[in-house]
Amino acid sequence: MTVSREIRLKSRPVGVPTADNFELASVTLPAPGAGEVQVRNSWMTVDPYMRGRMNDVKSYVPPFQIGEALQGGAVGEVVASNDPSFAVGDLVQSMFGWREAFNAPASAVQKLNTFGLPPQTFLGIAGMPGMTAWAGLLKVAGLKDGDIVFVSGAAGAVGSVVVQIAKIKGNKVIGSAGGADKVAFLKSIGCDEVIDYKAEKDLTAALMRAAPTGIDVYFENVGGEHMDAALAAARPFARFALCGMISQYNATGEMYGVKNLIQAVGKSIRLEGFIVSNHFEHLPAFLQDMSGWINDGKLKWTETIDEGIENAPGAFLKLFKGGNTGKMLVKLS
Amino acid sequence: MTVSREIRLKSRPVGVPTADNFELASVTLPAPGAGEVQVRNSWMTVDPYMRGRMNDVKSYVPPFQIGEALQGGAVGEVVASNDPSFAVGDLVQSMFGWREAFNAPASAVQKLNTFGLPPQTFLGIAGMPGMTAWAGLLKVAGLKDGDIVFVSGAAGAVGSVVVQIAKIKGNKVIGSAGGADKVAFLKSIGCDEVIDYKAEKDLTAALMRAAPTGIDVYFENVGGEHMDAALAAARPFARFALCGMISQYNATGEMYGVKNLIQAVGKSIRLEGFIVSNHFEHLPAFLQDMSGWINDGKLKWTETIDEGIENAPGAFLKLFKGGNTGKMLVKLS
Repeated sequence: MTVSREIRLKSRPVGVPTADNFELASVTLPAPGAGEVQVRNSWMTVDPYMRGRMNDVKSYVPPFQIGEALQGGAVGEVVASNDPSFAVGDLVQSMFGWREAFNAPASAVQKLNTFGLPPQTFLGIAGMPGMTAWAGLLKVAGLKDGDIVFVSGAAGAVGSVVVQIAKIKGNKVIGSAGGADKVAFLKSIGCDEVIDYKAEKDLTAALMRAAPTGIDVYFENVGGEHMDAALAAARPFARFALCGMISQYNATGEMYGVKNLIQAVGKSIRLEGFIVSNHFEHLPAFLQDMSGWINDGKLKWTETIDEGIENAPGAFLKLFKGGNTGKMLVKLS
Repeated sequence: MTVSREIRLKSRPVGVPTADNFELASVTLPAPGAGEVQVRNSWMTVDPYMRGRMNDVKSYVPPFQIGEALQGGAVGEVVASNDPSFAVGDLVQSMFGWREAFNAPASAVQKLNTFGLPPQTFLGIAGMPGMTAWAGLLKVAGLKDGDIVFVSGAAGAVGSVVVQIAKIKGNKVIGSAGGADKVAFLKSIGCDEVIDYKAEKDLTAALMRAAPTGIDVYFENVGGEHMDAALAAARPFARFALCGMISQYNATGEMYGVKNLIQAVGKSIRLEGFIVSNHFEHLPAFLQDMSGWINDGKLKWTETIDEGIENAPGAFLKLFKGGNTGKMLVKLS
């Protein structure tokens, strides 16, 4: 018998989530049944998109249920197997995050080939956030030679990969982030111009200074004023990849109203929302690109790591306070 | 010597244009010089996009200059020619609207082959507004079988053609317009559901009732609340063709803030602004489609006609008051 602690949704957040919305609980796992494996998680991820699943609304993923353990990406090790396709010690990836251990059908976990990378990178640069960056920049925005690229939330798990892929491709990149540490981080990964949005009164003016001839691609992670600034600075035929709008996820009253959308008409701007699963057919190409760039030393990643399942809610809350640089992770074992 | 009256920009409008922003003036035209023709306009067009040219801002067309005659589409007849390529009586199309007659280099006017249609249709259904509708719906939004289409400003010169092309293609179409006359007109051209936006308190709720399963294509002519309603009602992978946002053209303070743009992320919506000149390579295909549909009786058009150059400013002002059904035109001779 194994005891696993897990984080459950105690109540649906109204506005910014707080620690009170979560509860820590313990469950006892029996030995895995026929066709099942038991996995001890070593890493779990917290991601901004999970905020949406805490609301009781229909979306591209079903909402979390109150009183049940949350879900999300995790990597771990098989500690008991009752299925011939898995052996004790196998490294696996699953959506059974937010818990220390679990039993699941063998079909619900995937063996992880790390290509020599640390396993937690498959929750970040080599996983969903990395693929989101890759697909958004190359497939949705359709990055071309000479494009000037603006990335908001550029120091985050997705943004920092967008910045680096654009630099690998030889483009000029402007990134925005909040605070001196993130500015320094962005400069260290080669971002040509960095806007500290917390230090700017007028984001549009700051973007115009950083990109005096305008931008061709905008990778949107933040929303709100960032969108208005990008529309104002866009050149004709600019393409916007809309990945997320973290500034709006906790809105309780009205959302921020985007005032410059009219500029999309005269400047023939294309804005395209996407979720990474639209692009899963490109997974092999993504893994080939990323492993090559990492092995060549062209791509760096940064992690902010909290430890222990009891600290997972706090790690999640940091995402909305700008508390992470690079990928926010929770180390579980 | 010919006297021509013309409309000049007297002052730049602030907010909604008024009659005071325009002045009527007379000019005397000499006989056309070598390589020139003299044309007497029979029709001129007024279009919403001209409002943008009245501001002193850089855009895809240069601004009108104070004290100079306005410009825009016109059809007329050659009354004197000093160029071998034109003869008196030739029907021509030009951008020398807002005046009764003009001299111009032969290269600045085009002979008009009407394919048996009334010449003023080349300022409407068979001209720029018709091509805007055709390109926006078929090329920008990429209309597909089964798409449910929402068109705002559906009783206007562009919108009414969008509605009819979508019906020819077999799609369900919801149109919005203001007032009972326009509602009746839209029903007469086959629009499946019509929203009288002036009679609705909650445009989103009205759209949800008209399209309970959501919309796949939005053809945007109006902006503001219409955009928020369309985003709310959009189904996954909806495509929005952003043609214009007439509700915002006269804004003096802040523009309306679009609050639902965040829905573009989760629903993978594509919003694409365009201007008709992006699609001029499709002109032959457009003319083939339109002349075929008109000759087969599948496409109808409606005109609102004012007479006399002195009434051209008033005709233009009607566009912003919902004073036109179908194409707004000024008959000059």
